[in-house]
Amino acid sequence: MTDVKEYMKQVGEQARSASRLIAKADTGLKNKALFAIADAINAARDAIGQANKLDMDNGEKKGLEAALLDRLALTPDRIDGMIEGLQQVAALPDPCGETTDFKYMPSGIQLGKMRTPLGVIGIIYESRPNVTVDAASLCLKSGNAAILRGGSEAIHSNTAIATCIAQGLKDVGLPADCVQVVSTTDRAAVGELITMTEYVDVVVPRGGKNLIERISRDAKVTVIKHLDGICHVYVDQTACLDKALNVALNSKTHRYGVCNAMETLLVNTDIANKFLPNITKALLDKGVEVRGCAATQNVLTKENLTCIAATDEDWSTEYLAPILSIKVVADINEAISHINHFGSHHTDVLISENYTLARQFLTEVDSSSVMINASSRFADGFEYGLGAEIGISTDKIHARGPVGLEGLTSQKWIVFGDGHVRT
Amino acid sequence: MTDVKEYMKQVGEQARSASRLIAKADTGLKNKALFAIADAINAARDAIGQANKLDMDNGEKKGLEAALLDRLALTPDRIDGMIEGLQQVAALPDPCGETTDFKYMPSGIQLGKMRTPLGVIGIIYESRPNVTVDAASLCLKSGNAAILRGGSEAIHSNTAIATCIAQGLKDVGLPADCVQVVSTTDRAAVGELITMTEYVDVVVPRGGKNLIERISRDAKVTVIKHLDGICHVYVDQTACLDKALNVALNSKTHRYGVCNAMETLLVNTDIANKFLPNITKALLDKGVEVRGCAATQNVLTKENLTCIAATDEDWSTEYLAPILSIKVVADINEAISHINHFGSHHTDVLISENYTLARQFLTEVDSSSVMINASSRFADGFEYGLGAEIGISTDKIHARGPVGLEGLTSQKWIVFGDGHVRT
Repeated sequence: MTDVKEYMKQVGEQARSASRLIAKADTGLKNKALFAIADAINAARDAIGQANKLDMDNGEKKGLEAALLDRLALTPDRIDGMIEGLQQVAALPDPCGETTDFKYMPSGIQLGKMRTPLGVIGIIYESRPNVTVDAASLCLKSGNAAILRGGSEAIHSNTAIATCIAQGLKDVGLPADCVQVVSTTDRAAVGELITMTEYVDVVVPRGGKNLIERISRDAKVTVIKHLDGICHVYVDQTACLDKALNVALNSKTHRYGVCNAMETLLVNTDIANKFLPNITKALLDKGVEVRGCAATQNVLTKENLTCIAATDEDWSTEYLAPILSIKVVADINEAISHINHFGSHHTDVLISENYTLARQFLTEVDSSSVMINASSRFADGFEYGLGAEIGISTDKIHARGPVGLEGLTSQKWIVFGDGHVRT
Repeated sequence: MTDVKEYMKQVGEQARSASRLIAKADTGLKNKALFAIADAINAARDAIGQANKLDMDNGEKKGLEAALLDRLALTPDRIDGMIEGLQQVAALPDPCGETTDFKYMPSGIQLGKMRTPLGVIGIIYESRPNVTVDAASLCLKSGNAAILRGGSEAIHSNTAIATCIAQGLKDVGLPADCVQVVSTTDRAAVGELITMTEYVDVVVPRGGKNLIERISRDAKVTVIKHLDGICHVYVDQTACLDKALNVALNSKTHRYGVCNAMETLLVNTDIANKFLPNITKALLDKGVEVRGCAATQNVLTKENLTCIAATDEDWSTEYLAPILSIKVVADINEAISHINHFGSHHTDVLISENYTLARQFLTEVDSSSVMINASSRFADGFEYGLGAEIGISTDKIHARGPVGLEGLTSQKWIVFGDGHVRT
C-alpha cells in the first residue's frame, strides 16, 4: 500500500511535469505525435497481438463472461480502428489557444479569453484496451498529460499499447510521461489517482455504474461522469404520429446497450388509444418487451397486445436491453415533471408540432441534451461534430453532454494594455 | 446535530423545489423580484439598522477586532449600496436561455447550446451582511435558488435582510424559498450544506483562507473558490521602463488588502541596476516594505535603499499588506517557471514591448488572468464587464477568474429535428 502510494505520487509528479511541456507544444507537434503513435502501433501489431492473447488466455482461465472477453479482444480490425482514431483526432481542430470575446473595456484595456489545457487528466476504465489509445489521443490533442488506469484483465494489452505511445512521443521529442499507463493492478492505485488533487485536475471514469459510483463517492479530484442514461421520448397530442413512431422506434431499437437509448416512452392520454397500439406492434415485432402503466395496459390488452405491468422501479431503471416502459400522462407538465424526477438528466425528446410546447420543453427539461422531433440516439460526440468523445457528462459543472476536446480544456482571461493602470 | 441535519435537509429540499420555479421565471419577472427586494430593504431601513445594532453590540461585548466590526456595520451608505447593487444586477443581461453555436449537422439535425441555471447555489461567507443581498441577487438573476450561510456574528442583520428578500419574492409571486438564509448558527450546518450533493449544485465560500481550505477539504459538492492571490509582475529587459514603473506601482499600491494586488516583482537581470532603484524609491515613498533576493539587495544597498532579505517563504506568501518581495531572474523562462511554481494561478503580468515574449507569456503562464502591460488590479468582475462577481476562481474547472452570472450557469445541448432518426 505504501509502495502504491509512493508509486502513484511519482506518476503524478511526472505527469504534472510533462503537462507543462505538452501544454506548450504547438498543434503541428501534437499531430506529429499522434501520427507517430499510429505508426508505432502499426509496427507493433504482433507484439500487441501476443500481449492481448496473454490477457485473453488469462481471462478464459479465470472464467470471464463472453461479453467481457469480447470487449477485451484486440482483433486486427480493432487495431485498425485505433490507428484510424489517432488519425481522426489529428485531423480535429486544436482547441488550445483559441481566443474569443476580444473587446476593449471602458478602462482602455483589451480583454479576451484564451482556451488552455486543464493539466493532467486521469482516465479509469475497464476491459476495452482500445480505450487506452482513444483516451491518450484526446488528452494529447487537448494539450493535457494523461494517467491511464485500465482494467487488470487487460494489463498486458495496455502495457503493449503504452509502449507504442511512449515510442511515438519520443520519436517527435515529447516526453513519454505525457501518457502514463499505471503499471500496477493494485486497486489502491485508483484510490490514490482520484485523491491526488495536487497532481490530477480531472478524472474521467468509463465503465459500469458501480465503478463510477464508487469513484464519485471517494474522489477529491473533479469527476466528469454519467451514471445512467434513462432517456425519455414524450409524444404529445400535438405530435405528428408518423414522426413519433419513427423517432420512438429508432430511439429504442437502433441499439439497446447504449446510454442514449430510450428507456421510457411517455404518451399523452388524448392520443394513447391511437398511438400506443401502433408503436407497441412495431416494438414487439423487434422483440422488445413492453411494460406499461395501468392506462397503457388498458389500451393494449383491448388490442390483444402483450404488456407487462410496470412497477415504480421501472421508471428509474436503465434497461440497456430490449425492454421499454410506457406511461400515459395527462399533459406536457406531467411529462416534464416525470422526466426531471425519474430521468438521469441525459437526453430527453419531445414529439410535437406545437411551437409553444417546444419552447416550454426546451426550457424546463433539465437534461444535458433536450430534443424536439429527433431520436435520442443523436446524443453522441460524433453526431454533435466533436469528432470523438471522452465520455458523456450528466453533471452540469464544467462539461455537460458529450465531452470532446473542448471539455478537456479551460479558458483563461487575457488582458492587453499599453501601460494601463487602475485609477 | 441530528436536528441540524434534518433542518438542512429540509432547507435543501425546499431549495431544490424552488429552483425549478426560479429556473423557468422569465427575465422580466426576475428583474421585478430584484426591484421588489430593493423596495423592501428601503422600507425596512429601521428594522435592518436595529438588527445590525444588536449584532454590533454583541460583537463589541465579545471583543471582535475593529476590522471585523467595521465589516459587520450596516451604515446607511451600505444599505444604499445594497439597493443600488440590486438595481445594477437587474440591469445586467439575463444569461439564461442564451442560445449559441446553432448549426446544421450532416445528419440534418440542427444543434445548438442553451444556457441554463445550475440549480441550487450555496454561499458561505463571514461577517459582511451586505453579501447576503449581493449573493442572492446574482443567484436569482441567473435563475438559481440560493442557500446563504453567513457568519454567526451577523445573524440578526442577515435575518432582517432575509425577511426583505422573502417579502420581495412574495410580492412578485415567486416562492420565498428561492433564497433561504440558514437560521441556525450551529457549525454543523456548514458541514451539511457542503455535502448535500442531492440538493446543492455548487458551493461558493467567501472569506479567509482557513474557511476556504476547510470547506474545500470536506466538500462533496463542487466548490468555486480562490485560496490565494499571489500575483506577479515580471519586468523584462524589453520593457518600456516608464510603463513598468507605473504598472508595478499600481499593481502593488492601488489597494493592499485585495487578492489581485502584486505580491512579488520579478525583474530581468539586464535591467536590474536601472529599474530596481527607481521602483524601490517609489515603493518606499508609499510606505511599502521591500524584501529582496540577494541580487536585489546588492543593487539596492549600493543605492542606500532599505531592502530586507527575502526568505524562501516570501515567494509563496500573500501579504495583503504594504510589503513586496522582489526577485531578479535571468530571463522570461525563469520568470514563467517561478510564477507557475510559486504563484496561485490568479493574475500575472508581463511588462515588455516584445511580440514573441508576449506570445510566450500568454501561452505558458497558467493563471486565471494573464496580462501584458496592464495592472494586475484589472482582474475584477466589474473591470471585466461582468457587472458583479460572486467570487474569483483560481481553479480551472467550470469557472476561472472573476465569476459573474455566467459562472452560475451551465449549457445544455438542444436539438431540433423534423422526425430525424439515426441510421
